[in-house]
Amino acid sequence: MLGDRLSTRFLTNAFAKNLGISTITVENAYAQLIAEGYLYSIPKKGYYVQDISTSAGGEEQEVATPPAAPPVPEKPRYFADFVTNQIRPENFPFSTWSHLMREALVNRREQLLANPPFEGVLELRAAIASHLHAFHGISVSPEQVVIGAGTEYLYGLLIQLLGRDHTYAMEDPGYRKIEQVYESFGVPFAPVSMDQNGIRIGELQEKGIDIVHITPSHHFPTGITMPVSRRYELLDWARQSGDRYLIEDDYDSEFRLRGKPIPTLLSMDRSGKVIYMNTFTKTLASTIRIAYMVLPVQLLSDFRKRLSFYSCSVSSFEQYTLAAFLESGGFERHINRMRSDYRKKRDMLLTGIRESGLGSFARVSEQDAGLHFLLQFHTNLSDQELAERAAARGIRLAPLRNYYFDTSCVPEGLEHTFVINYTSIDEAAAAKALPILEEILRG
Amino acid sequence: MLGDRLSTRFLTNAFAKNLGISTITVENAYAQLIAEGYLYSIPKKGYYVQDISTSAGGEEQEVATPPAAPPVPEKPRYFADFVTNQIRPENFPFSTWSHLMREALVNRREQLLANPPFEGVLELRAAIASHLHAFHGISVSPEQVVIGAGTEYLYGLLIQLLGRDHTYAMEDPGYRKIEQVYESFGVPFAPVSMDQNGIRIGELQEKGIDIVHITPSHHFPTGITMPVSRRYELLDWARQSGDRYLIEDDYDSEFRLRGKPIPTLLSMDRSGKVIYMNTFTKTLASTIRIAYMVLPVQLLSDFRKRLSFYSCSVSSFEQYTLAAFLESGGFERHINRMRSDYRKKRDMLLTGIRESGLGSFARVSEQDAGLHFLLQFHTNLSDQELAERAAARGIRLAPLRNYYFDTSCVPEGLEHTFVINYTSIDEAAAAKALPILEEILRG
Repeated sequence: MLGDRLSTRFLTNAFAKNLGISTITVENAYAQLIAEGYLYSIPKKGYYVQDISTSAGGEEQEVATPPAAPPVPEKPRYFADFVTNQIRPENFPFSTWSHLMREALVNRREQLLANPPFEGVLELRAAIASHLHAFHGISVSPEQVVIGAGTEYLYGLLIQLLGRDHTYAMEDPGYRKIEQVYESFGVPFAPVSMDQNGIRIGELQEKGIDIVHITPSHHFPTGITMPVSRRYELLDWARQSGDRYLIEDDYDSEFRLRGKPIPTLLSMDRSGKVIYMNTFTKTLASTIRIAYMVLPVQLLSDFRKRLSFYSCSVSSFEQYTLAAFLESGGFERHINRMRSDYRKKRDMLLTGIRESGLGSFARVSEQDAGLHFLLQFHTNLSDQELAERAAARGIRLAPLRNYYFDTSCVPEGLEHTFVINYTSIDEAAAAKALPILEEILRG
Repeated sequence: MLGDRLSTRFLTNAFAKNLGISTITVENAYAQLIAEGYLYSIPKKGYYVQDISTSAGGEEQEVATPPAAPPVPEKPRYFADFVTNQIRPENFPFSTWSHLMREALVNRREQLLANPPFEGVLELRAAIASHLHAFHGISVSPEQVVIGAGTEYLYGLLIQLLGRDHTYAMEDPGYRKIEQVYESFGVPFAPVSMDQNGIRIGELQEKGIDIVHITPSHHFPTGITMPVSRRYELLDWARQSGDRYLIEDDYDSEFRLRGKPIPTLLSMDRSGKVIYMNTFTKTLASTIRIAYMVLPVQLLSDFRKRLSFYSCSVSSFEQYTLAAFLESGGFERHINRMRSDYRKKRDMLLTGIRESGLGSFARVSEQDAGLHFLLQFHTNLSDQELAERAAARGIRLAPLRNYYFDTSCVPEGLEHTFVINYTSIDEAAAAKALPILEEILRG
């Protein structure tokens, strides 16, 4: 039913008079009712009531009450967390960061607000290219560097770039998150097992893999450094088809605690088959979301054509701040300080393990390559039982078997082995945690 | 071939002596060669040269030189850009933001570095829930609020949550980016045409749509406000199947320049069928990437179960700063200031158009709802020609037809119509641009 006709001027005046308000207020009320669709007006005729008698009229009665929000699972509290990648406050350069952020906010107002290329702020990409050259001896153009809000986000971009009709792979054991990204994007994927030199090439062939994610400098979590022979074999494998790519995840190369950095796979690649990926999660903070990848030159045109409709996912404010941190040399000083700090932390832990009663229950391995090592216990407890008893006492431990896609593949020699990430542990926490672990192992 | 045996101690000493360096240096060199896989050692026997004679031996000769990076397409420079969503420096609260950021860096060190829930920092989600209540009268729980690095990122999350086996839709005309996200994720989608009240419900049925993206408060780009009748019809449509959802994109409701904010579809929804989405792109800056969505309660468990492996994509540093900005009332004062500034900008432009010679070539519409209006020219030039001539003189204009998926559907009455976004235009640019447009139209 179309509504009754209302004589506009007459009604407006009458309402205003009766309610003791101005005609403007009444007119605004009509305007709002029109904007929301309750009335409509016909010029020189008047306002009409809009027909809204759909079944929605009965809506209030029919509808189900929406369920209450499910309770948020409570996070357990640990005094010693040997799993998290969180940085401790004393390891974040607060005053430098604050200073550089303020400087950007004062001096770069136009730039901060100008939409950057979707690959990221050019200044940061150039600073990263310089860092890669200085630290790894890799020559890449800033145009090949793509900034994103975390490596997970960049994996998602890569799937969109390389396509859903390829088969993706990751190392088994390995980062479980990668498999979760592949699954969540609905692309075919398969885990590929490792031998003592890294991922098995034969299995890549058998499983028809096109794109494989690897951590050659310091395999996560076993700590294996892929030897040069396997690297050449992998590059050979990749060159055999135009669809094949290697994603080199160099997540903690800045923290190799002994010797020089291991040369990257990217630096050995002459055919544009390596997509290099790294993050500032460990060198800066896991809560400032900045990661980057280096794309082979032949992928750049396609990348721009197909994905430049996206905006860059990282705040320009933080991109300019990080660029200044890199350019000023502050970043290099910062990771040198952190490296020496982490070395002390590791030594403190290793000494603690050796000198406590724990030494007779545990064997340490892979302690030189980066920010975690392996700790194997002599125990009859299952990994699960041990982790649960530790958790009940405030200690978070991750069994190596958790990083296996196929847990039946955990080699016999690696039973009761735990991945010990020590970046968030301080001396007090270690001094408290080691005797508790010893107690649990003595049973 | 396994390498020749090298007598360890003898060689180390001989090298050191011959080269005039310490034995430690020589030992480190061996350790590095072992770590990289060029040598291996057998305890009590010595170092052996590793076999790396894969086909990679010939690699240097065979490989193609990678192509040079394609040139980055040069961005044209405009003195008057009527398309961009960039904020001008005078419209960003630099000193307040700088102050709040510094405060967070001083007072919240532990919190800034603690990994937040993947849905975002709880404090920001609570501040957004309060804002939605104060500004829109919507009651939602902070747990329903999900923070992400831009609405595009959140669309991607929604596709991963709701599934690839559904058909997605967006308004035609509408934001072309949404269709690009759907395409890039490889999900089925279809544009759905509009009548004067918004998206056509019949077409949703015909095309078998499950999930539809809409801008009911202020349709982009035509400016239509969806009347209450169509809203109820849409909610009815959504309730008819468990798979159906409405994504309400409320991208510029804070900037309705006349009257009160239009009630959201979310506030009318009693069945948990509306996913509300908004962004700080226009209220803060397009280069600080913070957007949010409000999920219906019944989707929360699934969302956590399937996607909580992701980290939140926005820096905690900026999340805490924005939370403080919202909580302090600074955000509300800021958008009030901006609204009045934009009203002045719009009036200045409209007066300029009316009072210049341009007035006789142009008709303005939809100027009240938000940060853009429509400008229709009387001209024989095609939209393309007009835009190109303007671009050659430094003016960026977007024809309405560019926002149509199917450009053959542009209604006759909307020919030569341009979408005028005026947020980045200042008085000087307007004073210069309007006479140039007039000149072009006079031919």
